[in-house]
Amino acid sequence: MTNAPKRDVLVSEVGPRDGLQSIQAIMPLAAKKAWVTAAAAAGVPEIEVGSFVPAHILPQLADTAELVAHALTIAGLSVAVLVPNFKGAQAAVASGAHKLTLPLSVSETHSLRNLRRNHAQMLDEVRQIAALIKSLPAGQRPHFEGSLSTAFGCTLEGVVPEQRVVELAVALMEAGCDEVGLSDTTGYANPAQVKRLIKSIWSAVGRDQLSGIHLHNTRGQGLANVVAALDMGLTTIDASLGGLGGCPFAPGASGNIVTEDLVFMLEAMGLRTGIDLDALFAVREIVSAALPGEPLYGMTPLAGLPLGFVPATTKQHQ
Amino acid sequence: MTNAPKRDVLVSEVGPRDGLQSIQAIMPLAAKKAWVTAAAAAGVPEIEVGSFVPAHILPQLADTAELVAHALTIAGLSVAVLVPNFKGAQAAVASGAHKLTLPLSVSETHSLRNLRRNHAQMLDEVRQIAALIKSLPAGQRPHFEGSLSTAFGCTLEGVVPEQRVVELAVALMEAGCDEVGLSDTTGYANPAQVKRLIKSIWSAVGRDQLSGIHLHNTRGQGLANVVAALDMGLTTIDASLGGLGGCPFAPGASGNIVTEDLVFMLEAMGLRTGIDLDALFAVREIVSAALPGEPLYGMTPLAGLPLGFVPATTKQHQ
Repeated sequence: MTNAPKRDVLVSEVGPRDGLQSIQAIMPLAAKKAWVTAAAAAGVPEIEVGSFVPAHILPQLADTAELVAHALTIAGLSVAVLVPNFKGAQAAVASGAHKLTLPLSVSETHSLRNLRRNHAQMLDEVRQIAALIKSLPAGQRPHFEGSLSTAFGCTLEGVVPEQRVVELAVALMEAGCDEVGLSDTTGYANPAQVKRLIKSIWSAVGRDQLSGIHLHNTRGQGLANVVAALDMGLTTIDASLGGLGGCPFAPGASGNIVTEDLVFMLEAMGLRTGIDLDALFAVREIVSAALPGEPLYGMTPLAGLPLGFVPATTKQHQ
Repeated sequence: MTNAPKRDVLVSEVGPRDGLQSIQAIMPLAAKKAWVTAAAAAGVPEIEVGSFVPAHILPQLADTAELVAHALTIAGLSVAVLVPNFKGAQAAVASGAHKLTLPLSVSETHSLRNLRRNHAQMLDEVRQIAALIKSLPAGQRPHFEGSLSTAFGCTLEGVVPEQRVVELAVALMEAGCDEVGLSDTTGYANPAQVKRLIKSIWSAVGRDQLSGIHLHNTRGQGLANVVAALDMGLTTIDASLGGLGGCPFAPGASGNIVTEDLVFMLEAMGLRTGIDLDALFAVREIVSAALPGEPLYGMTPLAGLPLGFVPATTKQHQ
């Protein structure tokens, strides 16, 4: 994008993937395109538009390739997708997406339940995907992230040892990921744990190899955990418009952090996101019109911005 | 209390005052007594049970003196009340409450709207109250806090200069308060501002003269702001069971932070509150039974505690 504003924090919108996979209704492709277009126009720099999984498992995301094709026409937008395995990664590479994220559940029980593969099998997939990406001409290689899901605890296994998270972060990097991410799939994380785990992962794989975190708001701790991540210096935060989504395979877990409330917090703190809040709030209308009866969360859009509020992103233009 | 657990953070329950004043329904005194008894039994160390305001203004709190009398029978419980002026303080002193909090709106417009007094008039009330307390025999003097409301911004005035907050903190101490508190009446606060303002107030009046903060969740920032306050070293946090309440005089402002989600966060972070989470969750049944149709907020009670979760308060007993 020309005239792109400077950014302190990259807010990665995961609603079209994590949100839509968690609900029964199937959003029409035209509405998805309108959502992605409007979010990008509001300044959202990265959108995870879908997941390359078989349509019989997640029919809600069956049109991911078409949506990637549309998103790639938007100048400056980073187009991300989820891939559960090598086969999904082949489709993702064919689609031309800029970024592939493969989830690896630190809880092996969750991994078997969610993707029917144990850790060794998942790491095999990672190695195959890394080889595929390496075989592409330089300049056409997507960024490849391994996301450590259930990193803060599991609804099936309970406490997840931090040492296990660190070991798998190292294993993902050795298997060929460009980067790892931390994911609180179950909404178990607390701010002290977020700080500890970031520190441990950084020690093990290097600071540049962990820049992002995916947090849920299942127990109302989402933005509190973001504050902890920001304190450590993390600069990429996932969020979902209207708080849509969560993990459908983890019983009791629901609720991504709300993009609107996150962006308000960051901008109020003086951290530039490049996102226009009013334009972002307006995106809700597209989503709610396309998902009748589906509840949208988020308190800032309802309460309105504080009187006299000037976002950090606006300040830099004044 | 004998065998009282050690505490790292004091959670001050304001629901019976801030919650009940904000809703139309009047909770019967018997239910209020049951609420206070159950909360104290769950380990809540301090409860703001009411406000000494004329019954025609807040009929919901007309029985505050009776509730104070009941609360004083509970061993170890700190019994706090709000007083809007000298007359209210006289009633509070007569009731025997342990702690009096007088709100001073940093926004003078809000002060005039809320309590029909400007800053000079409010500080006169403070001086009279301080003299009254000083006239009591040592050992019978309640703790006297001046609470800086609208400290983070005002729905009527907009941005509230931080220098103004600091000046009024100094003025409150000079007028005879034992301590000042910071209050985000309007839900405008962000974590960076929370840290800045605590630092400024500490510099102006001394660290021991500001220990507590009252935060709202109007824009979903409540617990994020708590993390900032904890990072600075604040040790007293107000909260309301079920998130009941907010400020009825500030248009658009609603939603205290939820005691249940706050206590979960603190205990998960390893900070002892002395509060038993399951017993706290059970208090909701008393409140919802006495307030039919009134929504209760809070995500942790609905999602449940994480599998294998051991609260910090429990750990110390193991």
